[in-house]
Amino acid sequence: MTQPKKRILTGDRPTGRMHLGHYVGTLANRVRLQDEYECFFLVADLHMLTTRTELERLRQTGENIRHVVLDNLSVGIDPEKSTYFLQSMVPAISEIALIFGMLTTVPRLQRVPTLKEVMQDLHIEQPSYGLLGYPVLQAADILCVRADLVPVGKDQASHLEVTREIARRFNTLYGEVLPEPETLIGDVPTLVGIDGQAKMSKSLDNAIYLSDDARTVEEKVRRMYTDPNRIRADIPGTVEGNPVFIYHDAFNPNADEVNDLKERYRQGKVGDVEVKRKLAAAINAFLDPIRERRAQYERNPRIVEEILAAGSARARAEADKTLNMMKEAMGLKFI
Amino acid sequence: MTQPKKRILTGDRPTGRMHLGHYVGTLANRVRLQDEYECFFLVADLHMLTTRTELERLRQTGENIRHVVLDNLSVGIDPEKSTYFLQSMVPAISEIALIFGMLTTVPRLQRVPTLKEVMQDLHIEQPSYGLLGYPVLQAADILCVRADLVPVGKDQASHLEVTREIARRFNTLYGEVLPEPETLIGDVPTLVGIDGQAKMSKSLDNAIYLSDDARTVEEKVRRMYTDPNRIRADIPGTVEGNPVFIYHDAFNPNADEVNDLKERYRQGKVGDVEVKRKLAAAINAFLDPIRERRAQYERNPRIVEEILAAGSARARAEADKTLNMMKEAMGLKFI
Repeated sequence: MTQPKKRILTGDRPTGRMHLGHYVGTLANRVRLQDEYECFFLVADLHMLTTRTELERLRQTGENIRHVVLDNLSVGIDPEKSTYFLQSMVPAISEIALIFGMLTTVPRLQRVPTLKEVMQDLHIEQPSYGLLGYPVLQAADILCVRADLVPVGKDQASHLEVTREIARRFNTLYGEVLPEPETLIGDVPTLVGIDGQAKMSKSLDNAIYLSDDARTVEEKVRRMYTDPNRIRADIPGTVEGNPVFIYHDAFNPNADEVNDLKERYRQGKVGDVEVKRKLAAAINAFLDPIRERRAQYERNPRIVEEILAAGSARARAEADKTLNMMKEAMGLKFI
Repeated sequence: MTQPKKRILTGDRPTGRMHLGHYVGTLANRVRLQDEYECFFLVADLHMLTTRTELERLRQTGENIRHVVLDNLSVGIDPEKSTYFLQSMVPAISEIALIFGMLTTVPRLQRVPTLKEVMQDLHIEQPSYGLLGYPVLQAADILCVRADLVPVGKDQASHLEVTREIARRFNTLYGEVLPEPETLIGDVPTLVGIDGQAKMSKSLDNAIYLSDDARTVEEKVRRMYTDPNRIRADIPGTVEGNPVFIYHDAFNPNADEVNDLKERYRQGKVGDVEVKRKLAAAINAFLDPIRERRAQYERNPRIVEEILAAGSARARAEADKTLNMMKEAMGLKFI
C-alpha cells in the first residue's frame, strides 16, 4: 500500500503579472512539488483587500486573477495534478476564519512582525481590522483543506506560527480535528531587479515578466544595470553581484558560454552588448516553452474560469467538510 | 399603492432561557413591531463565541437555541409573519463580515465602549480578535438583510454607529449599495431581579423565566426581596423601588388591586404573604397564555429546526443577494 500524498497549500495574491523573480522564488519550486504532493493553489483575492480597497485597483482584479493563473499554468503547474481555487469562491474560508478569530488574541496578532513591515512599507497609520487579521485568514486558507505542509519564505514563517497556534488551540479545546501544518522552508531565493535593486518587483518597475514577448525581453536586457564603473568595453569589470551575470547564472544553461563571458568581462575583453545579447537569447530560450504553454491554454478563452470553477468546487467540498468537523467538535451543529 | 414595510433586524445570543426581564426589555416590543415591519430575528450563535469558547458551555448551544426560539414564539412572535434565522446557517454573514473588516480600523473598534465593559465584566485581559470584531460581525448581521431599522438599547447604540460608518464607507468607495440603518431606540426598560438587584439576569440567579411553571413562580415570588426595614406586617413599608410593587405594576393588570395593596402596605395593614400571593397569581395569569402557546408549538418536537431551516433559507437568499451586490460593486465578481 502506498502512503497517501501529503497535502500542500500555497498561493498568490492577484496583484498583477508574475515575473522572473516569482519564478526563481516560488514557481520553480511548485513545479517540483506538484508530483510529490497533493497541491492546492490559492488565488487570494480576499487577502488582497487587506492592503487595497480603492475601486480603481479592485477593478483590475479579474484581469489579475487571469494573469496569476495563466502564469502558474505556463510554467508547468498542471491543473490535472493540482487544485487551483479562488478564495472568495469558498465561503467556508470566511466562516472558518471567523471561528479562528475567537481563538487568538489581539495582542498576539499585533506582535506578528510582518504587520509592522507592511504598515511601514505602505504608510498605513491605522491598520484595518482585516489587515490585523491577515494571519487568521491565512490560517483558514491553510486549514480549510487540512494541509500538512506550507512552503513559505522566511518572512511568512511568523504567520504560519499563528496557524499552528490556532490549530493547537482548537484541538486542545475541542479534540483533535485540525492538522498542525509544518513549514517547508526551502531556499526562497530572491532575484535582483534589472535596475540592480535588491528585488525584482512590479512596483519598482524593474521586472521581466513571464508573459513578456521576445522583443520586450531584449529591450529590458539592453537597459539592464551592470557594473557602473565599466564605462568602456576594454575596462575590466566586476562579475560578482552584477545583475547581468546573476541572470546568466540563473537562466543560461550553457555554462561554458557563461564562464567565457565572465572571464572576458573581468579582463575587459567583452562589450556589454555581447553579454546582454547572449543573456536576452538565454532568457528568451528559457521563456519560449513557457510562452508556448501559455498560448496553448489561451486557445480556450474561458480556461481560467473553467479551472477555477472546477478547483473551487473541489476546495469547497474540502472546506465544507472541515467546517462541519469543526462544528461537530464544538457542539455547534444544530441542524 | 402601499409602501413596502420597512425591514428590522434584531436578535438574541443563545445563552439560555429568557426571563421576564427580557420580556419587559425587548420581547414585548418585538410583538408590537412584527405587524408594522418586516422582521428578521437572528439567533446569534457565532456572536456567542466572542465571550465563550469552552466546550462544556458550547455543548449547551443546541438546547439554548431551542429555548431562545421557543421563548420568542411563546410570547407571540409569529414565524409566519417574521423570519427567524440561525447566524451560522447563513455563510454569507461571515463573508460579508470579512469584507467589512477591511473597511474599519483597529483603533476605531478599540474605542467602542462596550468592548471595555465586556472585558471588565468577564475579567478578560486580552480580547480575542473576534471579540474586538463584534461590531463588525454585527454590521454583517444587520446589513446582510439590508435592514432599515435596528431596535437597540442605549448600550448597543455605539455598535450601530460602527454599522452605519461601515455602510457609509462602503457606499463612498463602491457606490450606493447598502442602507444606512437607523436606530429605533425605544425605551428599553430593565426589570429588577427578585433579589432586589438592579437587573434580572441568569448569571445573578434572580430571574423568573418565561418557561417557569406556576409552582416555580410561586416559590420565587415567595422568596422575593421586599422592604428590608419591614420586619412585621404592621410596620409601614415603602412601595417605591420595592421589587414586589415594581412587578405588580408591570404584570398585574388589576390597577384597583395594586393601588389597594400599595395603600395598605404604606399603612402597615397588609402582610407580605398577601402581596406576594396576589403577585404570583398575576404573573401566572400573565404567563398562562405564553405557556399555552409554547405547549402548542412543542407538540411538534422538530418545530425549532423547521422554523430555523425555513427562516435561514430565506435569510440566506437575502444575504447571498447582498454579497453579490457588494462583489459586483467592488469589481470582485470573477465568475
